[in-house]
Amino acid sequence: MCMARIWSPLSRGLWKANNLQVRPSAPTLSLSYSDISVAFTVSVRSLFSSRRLHSPQPPSTRYFSINKSGISSVQMACSNPKQVCIIGSGNWGSAIARIVGSNALRSKNFDERVTMYVYEEMFNGKKLTEIINETHENVKYLPGRKLPPNVVAVPDVVEAAKDADVLIFVVPHQFIRTLCATLLGKIKSTAIALSLIKGFDRAEGGGIDLISHIITRHLKIPCSVLMGANLANEVADEMFCETTIGCKDATAGPLLREIIQTNYFRVVVVDDEDTVEVCGALKNIVACGAGFVDGLGLGDNTKAAVIRLGLMEMVKFVDVFYPGGKLATFFESCGVADLITTCYGGRNRKVSEAFVRTGKSIKELEDEMLNGQKLQGPYTAEEVSYMLKIKGMEEQFPLFTAIHKICTGQLTPKDFIDCIRNHPEHMGSRVDYSNLEALDIECQNSKL
Amino acid sequence: MCMARIWSPLSRGLWKANNLQVRPSAPTLSLSYSDISVAFTVSVRSLFSSRRLHSPQPPSTRYFSINKSGISSVQMACSNPKQVCIIGSGNWGSAIARIVGSNALRSKNFDERVTMYVYEEMFNGKKLTEIINETHENVKYLPGRKLPPNVVAVPDVVEAAKDADVLIFVVPHQFIRTLCATLLGKIKSTAIALSLIKGFDRAEGGGIDLISHIITRHLKIPCSVLMGANLANEVADEMFCETTIGCKDATAGPLLREIIQTNYFRVVVVDDEDTVEVCGALKNIVACGAGFVDGLGLGDNTKAAVIRLGLMEMVKFVDVFYPGGKLATFFESCGVADLITTCYGGRNRKVSEAFVRTGKSIKELEDEMLNGQKLQGPYTAEEVSYMLKIKGMEEQFPLFTAIHKICTGQLTPKDFIDCIRNHPEHMGSRVDYSNLEALDIECQNSKL
Repeated sequence: MCMARIWSPLSRGLWKANNLQVRPSAPTLSLSYSDISVAFTVSVRSLFSSRRLHSPQPPSTRYFSINKSGISSVQMACSNPKQVCIIGSGNWGSAIARIVGSNALRSKNFDERVTMYVYEEMFNGKKLTEIINETHENVKYLPGRKLPPNVVAVPDVVEAAKDADVLIFVVPHQFIRTLCATLLGKIKSTAIALSLIKGFDRAEGGGIDLISHIITRHLKIPCSVLMGANLANEVADEMFCETTIGCKDATAGPLLREIIQTNYFRVVVVDDEDTVEVCGALKNIVACGAGFVDGLGLGDNTKAAVIRLGLMEMVKFVDVFYPGGKLATFFESCGVADLITTCYGGRNRKVSEAFVRTGKSIKELEDEMLNGQKLQGPYTAEEVSYMLKIKGMEEQFPLFTAIHKICTGQLTPKDFIDCIRNHPEHMGSRVDYSNLEALDIECQNSKL
Repeated sequence: MCMARIWSPLSRGLWKANNLQVRPSAPTLSLSYSDISVAFTVSVRSLFSSRRLHSPQPPSTRYFSINKSGISSVQMACSNPKQVCIIGSGNWGSAIARIVGSNALRSKNFDERVTMYVYEEMFNGKKLTEIINETHENVKYLPGRKLPPNVVAVPDVVEAAKDADVLIFVVPHQFIRTLCATLLGKIKSTAIALSLIKGFDRAEGGGIDLISHIITRHLKIPCSVLMGANLANEVADEMFCETTIGCKDATAGPLLREIIQTNYFRVVVVDDEDTVEVCGALKNIVACGAGFVDGLGLGDNTKAAVIRLGLMEMVKFVDVFYPGGKLATFFESCGVADLITTCYGGRNRKVSEAFVRTGKSIKELEDEMLNGQKLQGPYTAEEVSYMLKIKGMEEQFPLFTAIHKICTGQLTPKDFIDCIRNHPEHMGSRVDYSNLEALDIECQNSKL
């Protein structure tokens, strides 16, 4: 990292005392002792005229960093720093913005200014973007955790994204097509995307459509994915965890890792994009099964068996519908780790348990327990079942099929275990691993 | 199955009403409506003179089976029925005896009489073997669940095992060498063994010795293994679960599956014996790590990361010390499923959590929480660390190494996460899968 000392005898205490907020338009000092970064405006702008900010609104700052020893320094612009835009600002989007913002401050490979598209809404009589840009806190979706001041909330998605080299998508999946339509032709043709969106979208005519495929198809840019056992609040609290980036491009992989990895958020990059994304959706079906087991009062053995059989159906599903996937990818955070977390915590498990215990419908429980939000597992199970039916493969996926039938009232929860007693796994008709590459993943990843 | 009708108009209700207990020596009716089997003595013995029982003590019964439609029938003797002996009668041994006993009644491939070696002890002033043979209940180690009456408790291990074709070992691992010494030369040379014993034994000079290897070395017979997410009480309660048999022999595999599998206890046979057994031991180390996470109050993300990194070290350990293992074996019940159950339930997790919260030593907690029994995880971690140290590979297994150092007071629990932040998995030095076969497992298993 290129550094130039501008002041020397500054102690950490002094910086802390000067923890002032950005004031737009005026060249005042703007300091925030978050992580190791400190940002301020002053007259430095002219130094970086070649790297003008494209901010539609204040604060139009330049950012400086300070290391933990208290020595202030300015982070020099290096060749072609990449501009990052985060599209989305919910709970998970804000948690990731904390990471991306602080990494952008630290790395010469990125422009310090990170734009974050925020769907404009009013909060206590004030615009959410204004609150975020003044207080550096997403008071609505991630209250209590500061964003780095170089993360700039922008209410216009085109304005936020138009100069970005890296577009990080983190919105509810139902908005992705509209967003892509809005962005088409308005972004850099050389941009790359990273989708953090979990779940499928429904393909036209039925079946599933991967979000990354939708982004690539609509925006004509490559789209990598990030999935893992990553509850947003725990990530925002900087608790140690892992994540998986699926990225086919050997150049983009290290770049994406650099903007995402911290000492508490550990990244493994694999080139098996589709498998990473499919895991992020199918785990929710399995979590419904785990919830049924809990609701039925069955034991730990049964729950472990259901999770394992679910994992085997995930493997088989990739094998059938996304051939070329790697077995080793299921060992990543996006695979077993996320599956475990979802089947022990997670709303799909919880609502499914209540489904068995109360006898209410999924719809009723969504209204009661999720403020009417749609539960991902039953929805995914429906689309997956549609695909299996078309292929005549329902019997080879008895767990997915039973969960769909139970969610839709075609079977009762007490039928669940009987549906999987004679699972293909137990009948000598097991997953055919021969289409799944499993060797030499070490070699592929060590390059990244 | 060969069936011969002997009585016709017997309803299920009648059989239930006649749920009598065996009385030794007298040719009385002995019925137990467990599963679909009913046993009785009467004068049938002469029909089967070629299949004499080798019972050192009562009841010397012949067993008949009845199907669920209420039609009684006699199970015909077929050529070379195998004699099974269960060596061990604790909680897990008794649970498996329920399964083996009822399967032996049903299958033409097995002699109905199953011997169970019971370490003789007094219970309420009476010999445990006598209680078991009279009441068909292991009142000490599996109270409340009946054993099939064809399971015969025998206090002399040589007497129990001498005619057996299949020896099922299910004793605490520290007794295995003595037992083998006692049995050497006293068993059939053609016998095969199946070990249900979890955990390593300590090799001479340090390091680990697999129990199945000890059995094979001492008794000169092949030894397969059975491991999985199988809490004994839940198996005894006939709750649905899965298990894995590791068996290299394509003839023995189906035979072992037949004596073990029921409609609630589902068996997958793989030929990767050592991996199956190693999983059953290493999971306990990982469970200590999961317990530390719980004790430290870290979140679900962190726990999932620790479990996953533990799994990766298990894979790597097999790769280094038991080359030739298959990646796919870690997806079996003995792998992920057992690991999950152990890291969420299980005594290793529980004691390790208390270790962090109370600051007491493992020894103190073993005394307090386990009546002085030794906790498997710290013990296994010690032997594993010894092996890693010899190979100079501790840095490649930072999770196993940290857990050992924390258990022995060389590190404090709060150091745990720092030890795995720069895990080889995150540093481009990942598991080399190239030595682990992963393809075509479907073909291998479909033969079984």
